[in-house]
Amino acid sequence: MKDSLIQSTDSAYSYPLLIKNLLQAPLVSAPDQEIVYRGDRRFSYREFAERVRRLASALTSLGVKAGDTVAVMDWDSHRYLECFFAVPMIGAVLHTINVRLSPEQILYTIDHAEDDVLLLNSEFLPILDQIRGRIDTVKDYVLLHDDGPVPDSHLTFSGEYESLLAAASTDYLFPDFDENTRATTFYTTGTTGFPKGVYFSHRQLVLHTLGVLAALSTPAVQGRLHRDDVYMPITPMFHVHAWGLPYIATTMGLKQVYPGRYMPDHLLELIDREKVTFSHCVPTILHMLLKSPLSRTIDLSRWKVIIGGAVMTRALCLEAMQLGIDLFTGYGMSETCPILTLAHLKPEMLDESPEVQADIRCKTGLPLPLVDLRVVSDGMENVSRDGRSTGEIVVRAPWLTQGYLKDHKNSEKLWEGGYLHTNDVATIDHQGYVKITDRTKDVIKVAGEWLSSLELEDILLHHPAVGEVAVIGQPDEKWGERPLALVVPKAGATAPVTEKAILLHMRGYADKGLISKQVVLLRVRFVEAIDKTSVGKINKVALREKYLA
Amino acid sequence: MKDSLIQSTDSAYSYPLLIKNLLQAPLVSAPDQEIVYRGDRRFSYREFAERVRRLASALTSLGVKAGDTVAVMDWDSHRYLECFFAVPMIGAVLHTINVRLSPEQILYTIDHAEDDVLLLNSEFLPILDQIRGRIDTVKDYVLLHDDGPVPDSHLTFSGEYESLLAAASTDYLFPDFDENTRATTFYTTGTTGFPKGVYFSHRQLVLHTLGVLAALSTPAVQGRLHRDDVYMPITPMFHVHAWGLPYIATTMGLKQVYPGRYMPDHLLELIDREKVTFSHCVPTILHMLLKSPLSRTIDLSRWKVIIGGAVMTRALCLEAMQLGIDLFTGYGMSETCPILTLAHLKPEMLDESPEVQADIRCKTGLPLPLVDLRVVSDGMENVSRDGRSTGEIVVRAPWLTQGYLKDHKNSEKLWEGGYLHTNDVATIDHQGYVKITDRTKDVIKVAGEWLSSLELEDILLHHPAVGEVAVIGQPDEKWGERPLALVVPKAGATAPVTEKAILLHMRGYADKGLISKQVVLLRVRFVEAIDKTSVGKINKVALREKYLA
Repeated sequence: MKDSLIQSTDSAYSYPLLIKNLLQAPLVSAPDQEIVYRGDRRFSYREFAERVRRLASALTSLGVKAGDTVAVMDWDSHRYLECFFAVPMIGAVLHTINVRLSPEQILYTIDHAEDDVLLLNSEFLPILDQIRGRIDTVKDYVLLHDDGPVPDSHLTFSGEYESLLAAASTDYLFPDFDENTRATTFYTTGTTGFPKGVYFSHRQLVLHTLGVLAALSTPAVQGRLHRDDVYMPITPMFHVHAWGLPYIATTMGLKQVYPGRYMPDHLLELIDREKVTFSHCVPTILHMLLKSPLSRTIDLSRWKVIIGGAVMTRALCLEAMQLGIDLFTGYGMSETCPILTLAHLKPEMLDESPEVQADIRCKTGLPLPLVDLRVVSDGMENVSRDGRSTGEIVVRAPWLTQGYLKDHKNSEKLWEGGYLHTNDVATIDHQGYVKITDRTKDVIKVAGEWLSSLELEDILLHHPAVGEVAVIGQPDEKWGERPLALVVPKAGATAPVTEKAILLHMRGYADKGLISKQVVLLRVRFVEAIDKTSVGKINKVALREKYLA
Repeated sequence: MKDSLIQSTDSAYSYPLLIKNLLQAPLVSAPDQEIVYRGDRRFSYREFAERVRRLASALTSLGVKAGDTVAVMDWDSHRYLECFFAVPMIGAVLHTINVRLSPEQILYTIDHAEDDVLLLNSEFLPILDQIRGRIDTVKDYVLLHDDGPVPDSHLTFSGEYESLLAAASTDYLFPDFDENTRATTFYTTGTTGFPKGVYFSHRQLVLHTLGVLAALSTPAVQGRLHRDDVYMPITPMFHVHAWGLPYIATTMGLKQVYPGRYMPDHLLELIDREKVTFSHCVPTILHMLLKSPLSRTIDLSRWKVIIGGAVMTRALCLEAMQLGIDLFTGYGMSETCPILTLAHLKPEMLDESPEVQADIRCKTGLPLPLVDLRVVSDGMENVSRDGRSTGEIVVRAPWLTQGYLKDHKNSEKLWEGGYLHTNDVATIDHQGYVKITDRTKDVIKVAGEWLSSLELEDILLHHPAVGEVAVIGQPDEKWGERPLALVVPKAGATAPVTEKAILLHMRGYADKGLISKQVVLLRVRFVEAIDKTSVGKINKVALREKYLA
């Protein structure tokens, strides 16, 4: 075979895919664009870039070197965005700590990631005080503080963020290095055992930015992101890079709004005042926002929202659509950077009824460019594209974690057979839409037949007296498993709901052939609340431990 | 330093950026979308993908291996698109031969690129007959033929394209390989000496696709490409990958129309019938289209056009805008894959008068994401962003040729100091717009002061009796250089134009301070035609040889 790699002349510049390169275009074409913190602090992109250089200088002065790990505990802020860029750009690793974990879990992740420096919002001092004396790796703490007196603490700070930046040099020449250098790391939650660390390189984050951008900006009308949009995250920046959108918004030179701690009315006020047009959040948060009376007095008809992290119900989707919100599902996970699919409508679907549209918007979506997503049987054969045959979603893409940090066994399990296993069970239809029907471990196997707990939950939610519900499989001698529905009755329902009424409701669906007859085996247990994970998903692991033990 | 590259678990899939990966998303989400050839042959993306596999099988049967070079001489066709994918996807190099070169130059490029197989449209048999017996490397010729009898030729064909495809297997498993594998090669023209070969890897083409897509799809309104657009190239596919748009259109799953040989009325009919909404072309072609009476009877108001390859005049821009065409400049060169900048309007500019808009649309544009474009002085210092200071455009991007094929000296000159030198002289303004004022070698140095030949040409074109014009620098003992205007008088002008009238016209501009006083040194020579290069640019090299020798 002839030598087929391209030859580079000695002087040619071999361009690495580094996060710093995302900053080039916006600084040329949108230097005066705004980055807003909580509605009261404003920075131009030019100032932002200067602050990124100051932060790099300040961290370097603290002794941070390439390969070190800098952890952050903060709500969504301009500071966090500065860390998204400055930390990886000096060759260090950004550890975005999930502040909703328990103090013990946070300690575990700090230890496991071997954090060298911790940038800490003063609001989280109480957490740190609970684990004091037990953090071994951190050499410097930097205080992030908005206003008012700093609460007492036993920690000694190497400085306060704004003072360090003010004192730092604006001259910082970000070096080139290997694009496979680790840029970020964080921990997945919601499963058994200790949190598992995932990690992403500069190359992966740049390609995620470009790949998501290619999917998000190309629709003709529905759900598209463009240069006049105003972006505000409502998925925390510690959660899978706020779905990567801060990198995308910056590359596009968008106005960006960082809301601090999420408080529903404050978020709605920011949407109104700053004219926010693009966000992303989990269904729970959207539900909270729509429950606020303020949501009925402000104009939400220009707001586009990616919904992810959990399945959006049709009812929630329809309620939001009535306010003019353009919402649609995005799918991914911590292991996938995260975005793999987006549930955009095809042009002809925009003529459909809201109900039909909602069904599509609630699907998992169409795979992004460069995403090789397959729905496969146990033997790794593709299932038919009929919208009915189910299989596991397995995936290849240029932005998937290449393993779990220091965890060989789970890394190999994740990548078994060369595809990343999502553990999500789905169908794919002839138009290309993927639709998750269950998590592999959430499928309930009744007499050898698979029942989808998500499908059961969806039908149960149609009962007027059901507020929240989770269905898990209860081991059963006769049937193998029987579905158990944990039901939170709806507040203010006219009459108390009974198991019998619910079973009658389910039988109606079974009689119409809409669901398997096996559903008559359902048992119902009324509970006061459903356990959630730190990111607001139903915690089936905890539920199983609690109700099946 | 700690080891900072990401670790891949043994089973993890390390995703290379290969051209085959661009095909994944459209085959899932738009398998029934159409690819149209000349308005009469239609293929779905599903069929297209099958034909790509058949072509790969057929080429492999002919003995083509990874590292071999497959050359194509064809007008814009579905076949060419199939070659854009199949040839690189088997690991071979696609050589897109410029059919407008002279037979001797074509022979030179076939030889220099070491073509193994040549796919040849029967229309070019006369060219091949002129160089027969002198092609050493080509082992197989494949005939591309639309209809009617094949002209006589001395060539022996290994088969006809459609027959080979019909006989070939649809099973072809495209292998993974290094993303830095050479995918394409072609030759630059319009300069002195032999054509120079440039080359691009899979990685470069994938990143060009994503980078251009990020710039082209994100504007809010003006000049944006979206999923409902219908694409038709009017820059030949042999010319810098038709500016990369076929790869972009395919990735997006757009309807694509390939027009065969460019004939103005046929192009206009296709725009009308196939509802083409997105194209790109050089000013000369646009000029030809607008000269056709058909352009006044069909609706062009949904047509978006990138203009590149040569500077668009304000007059042409305004004429097109009056028909509702959304046109704007794109900039790049063979060495740059090609696109580096696009002259999109910023939202507030859409309220400006057509004249003001035209000025912006005629600028060189804003750099694309990931493009590190600098306008520098001789000492490589950035010039001020004042829209007045001029310097050379030098550039880094992930998709620049890493040299000229087998030409060390020119490769090093191209990349001197680690930046690719464009030889274009430009300004950059505070809004980020780059504007080319000249080619370095086109600048005329009068008494130590630089005069822009483009600026002079622009002013000369405002004279009502001037049809075409080119300005070159004439060596002069006293002044160093004096500008010489080669003027083609406008056909049908009322009175014959004189040198005196033109000088008076120029003096008017100088008196208003719009141009340097040195312009009085202009000499005028009336000519019948201006020499153009094979891609329709003014050929200053030829003009200098002709008029200054």
